[in-house]
Amino acid sequence: VIESATVRDLKALIGADHVLAPDQARRYGHDATASAGLRGSPDAVALPASAEEVASVVAWCYARDTPIVPRGAGTGLAGGATPTAGGVVVSLERLNAVRSFEPLLWRLQAEAGVRTATVRRLARENGLLFPVDPGAGEESHIGGNIATNAGGPHCFKYGTMRAWTTGVEVVLAPGELVRFGGPLRKDTAAYDLTGLMCGSEGTLGIVTAAWLRLTPSPNVQAPVCAFLPDGAAAAQALQAIMASGVTPSAIEYLDPATMRIAGRSFPAEIGTDPGFLIIAEVEGTDADRGELCDALERTVMTDPRALWRWREGVSHAVGAHRGGKLSEDIVVPLDRFADGVEGIIDIGRRHDLEACSWGHAGDGNLHGTFLLDPTDPVEQRRAAEAAESLFGLARALGGSVSGEHGLGVLKSGQLERQLGRAGAAAHEAVKRALDPKGLFNPGTKVAAGPVWRPAVAASEKS
Amino acid sequence: VIESATVRDLKALIGADHVLAPDQARRYGHDATASAGLRGSPDAVALPASAEEVASVVAWCYARDTPIVPRGAGTGLAGGATPTAGGVVVSLERLNAVRSFEPLLWRLQAEAGVRTATVRRLARENGLLFPVDPGAGEESHIGGNIATNAGGPHCFKYGTMRAWTTGVEVVLAPGELVRFGGPLRKDTAAYDLTGLMCGSEGTLGIVTAAWLRLTPSPNVQAPVCAFLPDGAAAAQALQAIMASGVTPSAIEYLDPATMRIAGRSFPAEIGTDPGFLIIAEVEGTDADRGELCDALERTVMTDPRALWRWREGVSHAVGAHRGGKLSEDIVVPLDRFADGVEGIIDIGRRHDLEACSWGHAGDGNLHGTFLLDPTDPVEQRRAAEAAESLFGLARALGGSVSGEHGLGVLKSGQLERQLGRAGAAAHEAVKRALDPKGLFNPGTKVAAGPVWRPAVAASEKS
Repeated sequence: VIESATVRDLKALIGADHVLAPDQARRYGHDATASAGLRGSPDAVALPASAEEVASVVAWCYARDTPIVPRGAGTGLAGGATPTAGGVVVSLERLNAVRSFEPLLWRLQAEAGVRTATVRRLARENGLLFPVDPGAGEESHIGGNIATNAGGPHCFKYGTMRAWTTGVEVVLAPGELVRFGGPLRKDTAAYDLTGLMCGSEGTLGIVTAAWLRLTPSPNVQAPVCAFLPDGAAAAQALQAIMASGVTPSAIEYLDPATMRIAGRSFPAEIGTDPGFLIIAEVEGTDADRGELCDALERTVMTDPRALWRWREGVSHAVGAHRGGKLSEDIVVPLDRFADGVEGIIDIGRRHDLEACSWGHAGDGNLHGTFLLDPTDPVEQRRAAEAAESLFGLARALGGSVSGEHGLGVLKSGQLERQLGRAGAAAHEAVKRALDPKGLFNPGTKVAAGPVWRPAVAASEKS
Repeated sequence: VIESATVRDLKALIGADHVLAPDQARRYGHDATASAGLRGSPDAVALPASAEEVASVVAWCYARDTPIVPRGAGTGLAGGATPTAGGVVVSLERLNAVRSFEPLLWRLQAEAGVRTATVRRLARENGLLFPVDPGAGEESHIGGNIATNAGGPHCFKYGTMRAWTTGVEVVLAPGELVRFGGPLRKDTAAYDLTGLMCGSEGTLGIVTAAWLRLTPSPNVQAPVCAFLPDGAAAAQALQAIMASGVTPSAIEYLDPATMRIAGRSFPAEIGTDPGFLIIAEVEGTDADRGELCDALERTVMTDPRALWRWREGVSHAVGAHRGGKLSEDIVVPLDRFADGVEGIIDIGRRHDLEACSWGHAGDGNLHGTFLLDPTDPVEQRRAAEAAESLFGLARALGGSVSGEHGLGVLKSGQLERQLGRAGAAAHEAVKRALDPKGLFNPGTKVAAGPVWRPAVAASEKS
C-alpha cells in the first residue's frame, strides 16, 4: 500500500505511531449506529496527544479543505462520529489527562478523552458528585458528553452536560486554540460560547479539555419502582410524582415491550409481563421517600445499586434481542408523554417492526426503538423509515427530535422542519460563522437538506 | 416640534399612542448606570404590544439601517439598554402577559415584559420555586433576565437564568419571529440557540417570550450568618462550608466597608463595625444546618425573611451613601476570592475613591463598587478608571469581567483582553452571523475596540 500524502503529512506533524491509514482505521469508520447501516471511510485517523497537536492537525486540514471528524469513545447513537465524507478522523483518546482536581473547590479540569466514569469515580471518592450519567457512561468520554450535551437519568434534577461545564478549551477554524470560560462558576461577559460548544457535535470546532463543576454527593439515593398497566396510567403517576412536593433526582420509565425483553434480569421478582415501569428516585429524607411512595401505587422494593446497574444495561439488552436496533431519543412536552409512548408502538406496527421505548420520563425524553436484524438491509431501511415517522411524531406533539443524543447524521435534515426556515437559517448562520469552509464534521447536525437513508447494500454485521 | 419620519412610520405600525418622540423619551435614554454618566438619546421609543408588532418594528428598522435598542425594566448595571448610537428603543413593557402556567408540569410561559417578581410569586403561590433572584428582582423583567443571563444569591445552587429557560420566542434580523426550544426540559437537536440568547444583551435579536422551568419550593430556608475579621478568614470559612458535605443554596458575602454602610439596618444587633459577613443558606434538614454552623464560627441568628429583605436593599443603601456608585460584577476562581476582595479596596485607594464589595461569594462573583458624587464629573472619570483597574484585576486572577450584569456598554472593549484575539473573533463572528448589519444594540457587548469613558461634561444628577 502506498502511503497517501495525508497520512504522510500527519505523521510528520504528530508522529508516525499516531496516524492510521485507511486499512488500519476500520473501527474509526462508525459509532454505535453501525448496526443501523451507518458507516464511513476516513482518509486517515489522527491520534494527537495534546491540544497543540490537535490545533496543528486542524490547521493542516483547514488549509487543504479536508474534512475533520472529531471522535470520542464512539458510543454515539446518532452517527455523529461517522466520516461520511471521508477526511481525517481526529480521535481524542490520547488526551486523557485529568489536568487538575480540587475537591474542596468542587471543580476538575479534564481533557476531552477522559472517560465519564473516571470523573464520576474521582468525584465519588472525594464525597462529590458529577451527575452526568449517559447510558454509555462507562466508556463515553467527556469530550463526547460535551459534543452531544449528554444527559442520562439524573439530569432530571441536575441538568445536562452544559450545566456542569464551566469552560472549554477548543480548537476553532482555521486551527486556533482558544478558551471560553474556565474554573469559574459564572461568566456572562461573552456570548455563551461554552454553551454553544455543548451539543455542537464537533461541527464548530474540537473541544480538547473542559472545566467541570462538581457538587456534594447526596447521602441517600432511594429509588421507588412502580408498575402501571399502561402509558395513560404511567402519565398519571408522573403527574402524581410532580405534585408530591418532592424533587426527584430521576424519573425513568420502561414501557411494557421493553420490560418483556429486559425485565428478566430486573433485581426483584416481577413476573414475565409486569407492565409499565416507572422509577422515581429521591435523594432526600425518609419523609421525601414516603411522599413518593404515597404518590405511587404498586411499588416494588429493590436494591438501589442493583437497580441502576440493571437500568444501565437496558439498551444493550434490547439491542441484543435481535442483534440490532435503531433507537431515537425524541423529546415531548410532559403532558404529551402517553401520546409519545403509544405513538412509538403504533409506528412500529405500521412499519412492521418490533418497537419499544424507555427513557427519562420526567424530561419527556423517549428512546423510541425499533429492533432489527443488522444483516437484513430491508429491515434497516424500514427502521430508517420508522425513525422518520418518529420524528414526525415528535414535531406533531410539539417536541424535539433529540434530547441527549444529538442530531448526528441520522437526523440531519430534520431540523428545518422543527425550527422553520428562519430558525434553521439562524442555526446554519452560526455554523458558517465558526466554520466558514464547512469542514468540521460535514453531514452532521445539518438543518436542511436530504434526510439519511441506509444504503440498501449495507449488509455487514456489526 | 415637527414629527420625525421615524416616529410617524412607527406610529403607523403600532399605533400613535405607543410611540414616543425624543422629547417624551428621556427616561428611556439610560438604565441604572445613569449616575455613572451613561446616557443616550433615542430617535423614538416603540412600545409594541405583541411579538408580531415587535417583528414589524424590527423589520422597519432593519430595512432602514436604524439601530434597535431592546429595553426591559431599565434596571441593568452595565449600560446595556443605552441608545448610545440613537435609533429606536424597543420597550417590551407592554408584552406583560403570562401566556400559560401549568404548576403540575412545573412550567410557565411568560412574555418578555413580565416582572421577575410576578413569576416568583405565581410559583410560590403554587408550591413551586422560580429561583432566579437578581438584585432588582422586584422591578426587573424576564426579558432582561434573559438578556443578561441574570443570577442572584440562589444561583449558587440553582444556576443562572439559562438553567431555567427552556425556550425562547425571538425576533431575529431582518424581522423574523422564530422559536427555539419550548415547553421541553431537554433539547439538543439544534445548536444551543436558546442559550445563545441568554446573556446576549439584545445584540442578537429581541426575545419576546420565554418558556420557563420551575421546581418544587423548598420547605425550609435557613440562612446562617457569620462575622469574620477579614477576607482571608472569610475565604477560609468559604472552604469550610464547601467541605461540610452540605450543598448550600446561597453563599453571600459583604465586606467590612459595605457592612459599615449597610450594616445599620441589619436585622440583628451587630455593632457599628462588625467585620466581614458571610451568609450561607441551606434548604435541607436541621442536620444540614447544624453542619453549616459547625463549619462556621461566630454565627448570628436572624429571621430569614428579614435577612434577605435587608440583603436585597444593600445595593440601594450603598448607592445612597454618596448619591452615586459604579458597581462592577467581576468573577474570580474561588481560590482567588480573598485576593479579589482585597484588590477592590486597593484599587479604590489608588483612584482616591471609597470602595467596597459584596456579592455571591460561593460563585466568586464580586460586586466591586466605587462610591461617587453623581454631580462630580471628575469622580465619574476616576470611577471609570477604577473600573478599568478592576477588570485588569479580574483578568490577572484568571476571572471574568462579568458574572451576571453582562458586558453592556460599560465593559465593551474588555472582552478581547479576556478571550484573546481568536476567542474574541469567534464572539464577533456569532454577532455578525445573526446581525449582519450590526443594528441590534450597537455599542453593547462589543469584544474589541475602545473602552467606555464618561464624557467630562456629563454632570447631570440622576
